[in-house]
Amino acid sequence: MRITPKEELEHRISRLQALMAKEGLDAVLVLQNADLFYFTGTIQSGCLYVPVAGEALYLVRKEFGRARMESGLREVVPFASMRDIPGVLADYGYPLPVRVGMELDVLPVNLFERYRAVFPGAGVCDATPLIRQVRMIKSKYEIHLLQDAAVQVDRVNRRAREVIREGMTDLELAAELEFTARKEGHQGLVRMRMFNAELFYAHVFSGADSAVPAYVDTPLGGVGLNPSFGQGAGLKRIERNEPIIVDFAGCVDGYLVDQTRVFSLGRISGRLDKAYHDMLRIQERMIELVAPGVPWGSVYDACLSLAVELGYADNFMGNKGAQVSFIGHGVGIEIDEYPFIASSFNEMAFEPGMVFAFEPKVVIPGEGAIGIENTFYLSHFEGLKQLTCSDQDLTVL
Amino acid sequence: MRITPKEELEHRISRLQALMAKEGLDAVLVLQNADLFYFTGTIQSGCLYVPVAGEALYLVRKEFGRARMESGLREVVPFASMRDIPGVLADYGYPLPVRVGMELDVLPVNLFERYRAVFPGAGVCDATPLIRQVRMIKSKYEIHLLQDAAVQVDRVNRRAREVIREGMTDLELAAELEFTARKEGHQGLVRMRMFNAELFYAHVFSGADSAVPAYVDTPLGGVGLNPSFGQGAGLKRIERNEPIIVDFAGCVDGYLVDQTRVFSLGRISGRLDKAYHDMLRIQERMIELVAPGVPWGSVYDACLSLAVELGYADNFMGNKGAQVSFIGHGVGIEIDEYPFIASSFNEMAFEPGMVFAFEPKVVIPGEGAIGIENTFYLSHFEGLKQLTCSDQDLTVL
Repeated sequence: MRITPKEELEHRISRLQALMAKEGLDAVLVLQNADLFYFTGTIQSGCLYVPVAGEALYLVRKEFGRARMESGLREVVPFASMRDIPGVLADYGYPLPVRVGMELDVLPVNLFERYRAVFPGAGVCDATPLIRQVRMIKSKYEIHLLQDAAVQVDRVNRRAREVIREGMTDLELAAELEFTARKEGHQGLVRMRMFNAELFYAHVFSGADSAVPAYVDTPLGGVGLNPSFGQGAGLKRIERNEPIIVDFAGCVDGYLVDQTRVFSLGRISGRLDKAYHDMLRIQERMIELVAPGVPWGSVYDACLSLAVELGYADNFMGNKGAQVSFIGHGVGIEIDEYPFIASSFNEMAFEPGMVFAFEPKVVIPGEGAIGIENTFYLSHFEGLKQLTCSDQDLTVL
Repeated sequence: MRITPKEELEHRISRLQALMAKEGLDAVLVLQNADLFYFTGTIQSGCLYVPVAGEALYLVRKEFGRARMESGLREVVPFASMRDIPGVLADYGYPLPVRVGMELDVLPVNLFERYRAVFPGAGVCDATPLIRQVRMIKSKYEIHLLQDAAVQVDRVNRRAREVIREGMTDLELAAELEFTARKEGHQGLVRMRMFNAELFYAHVFSGADSAVPAYVDTPLGGVGLNPSFGQGAGLKRIERNEPIIVDFAGCVDGYLVDQTRVFSLGRISGRLDKAYHDMLRIQERMIELVAPGVPWGSVYDACLSLAVELGYADNFMGNKGAQVSFIGHGVGIEIDEYPFIASSFNEMAFEPGMVFAFEPKVVIPGEGAIGIENTFYLSHFEGLKQLTCSDQDLTVL
């Protein structure tokens, strides 16, 4: 079990404070688990108060002892009620903030109103874009965790080679791979920030079932076991000569990588095989393009153009009518972090330190889905590096 | 895969409409997955518009075809943008609502503001208490699903007898049990409504690790694998003569039951053994007390008094300082539904149709936790029935 080093936390908070100063914010309140973990090193229940200058205060309701142990922050303070916050601020000589940032994309209305009442008269704005900007630049420490997660997901992939057999259900395969990941130390939980976006390890499905669209904002959906959670593996049996998708999120000490590989028992159709190699070409195009200063949206546009040129206008990144408007997404503590390699994200550009999954995929209704996904790291001195490391060939068993 | 029958959905919506009429609401917008599943039979992305009278409209952004297939509602309508909502309402001859209910306990601020802009001038209130009241009364159809979930979790329990062995880690045991549940058709996801409340199947831990408090609002916490998700199974090795807690949520077609059993390799200490039997006595007290018309809080008070009488003032329902103020919680699509057998819930009373988990537990720091949990159904004609069905004895292996 790794404890986030104190210097990491301090560096993260000071980067947030620099953005806050630029935006004219006096304070940011951090409440959501993923953000709490990033800035405090733990998720013990409470609230992190980050002033624009000075020490951050981690106010902990439960469990204080663990927060002291797990967080490298200097000021871990017990508190019982939100109403105590102004008193705690006064103890530290901090004035009441006039402009406060909160995570408005994830905070439920009722909870937000209760916190807002603590600072009557203060203006509130959305701190999430700032938090996202800090979190999108990964440190060496984080890259090590992501590398470990890449090794974990490679073990899952190797296990897939061993267990896939004709007639097993997609669910049986998913269960085997989840079991493998779990024994390798996967925490189970895969965090996604977006409202209603629930994920479970990720998506394992075969043939026609891999071509079924779902409600989720992902290129592939899947039938799932029931309409309560209609995505991912269902009860379809794996047959010969169809693609088997293993889209899996590895997770070590809170950090995620995302990888997709395709398997088959015997050869798949020429059309699917060609599509696979075309998706590799799109990955190559992305690798050529991504560099510091390049807008996220421009990489999306170029890769989409290539997909259209290759004949996939109607089935790239999803079924016609259910196509998603991104090809890549940042990963880290959540699976939907900055950067977004997505339509119309032209104001933001790639920077060294960014980590993202890139997943060109094609759906052929009734036949199956195919594609590849890797997690990449734009390093400071060595350009774009691939973190996920499983063999990239179509695995014909 | 079961599809929720049309009559179920209609009955649920008409019960919501009756409560809306009483509260003076013109419409309720349902957006969150668990609520959407309950009222539409699926979670395809969109919004359910429930007028106080007349047909509900399920506006679906993605995936429309699946929503048509999976939802028994008559009016499933494609839509692209929230701004289209007033037009759709006009098409159906519905006036713009003046008082709208929304799920304010779960809706993020930003999303809420966007929906609110669709109905400028309308008053907005929290619809969740009404939705909770509808959802707390289970139908025969729902009870069948819960019974299936009880069978699933019993299989997990039987598997625990087979696999527990000295020297295995809590994580290894958890992974085995999760694997079993998954192959039995567990959807993976365990839904909890509360902000930041993340769960993964539930909690498997042994000895001293079972006595470690955590941030979660549960009597037991556990160390977990890392501070990013510091609950549940960690890497502690199972030893002889200590309690092994298997607290597991079974889940079939979206419906959850919650059960806890205790195992040990050889006998546990007399103190823990006595505590186990004392927890059974508290369960018996609850069974005597629960009946239609009895306030939830009064059952909590009586059971807490008994726990105090038996000598557990400082360690009932958690470690001293981390004790939770409930002994039971409703279950269904989420694991934190009505009723709450909790402190000061005296305005609401038990009614036939309610389903809840009851979990008297004791923590002995440094030694371990012990207790029992079952899911109960207050039936219409046969009183309180126990849904979870695993052997209630301490299992000494």
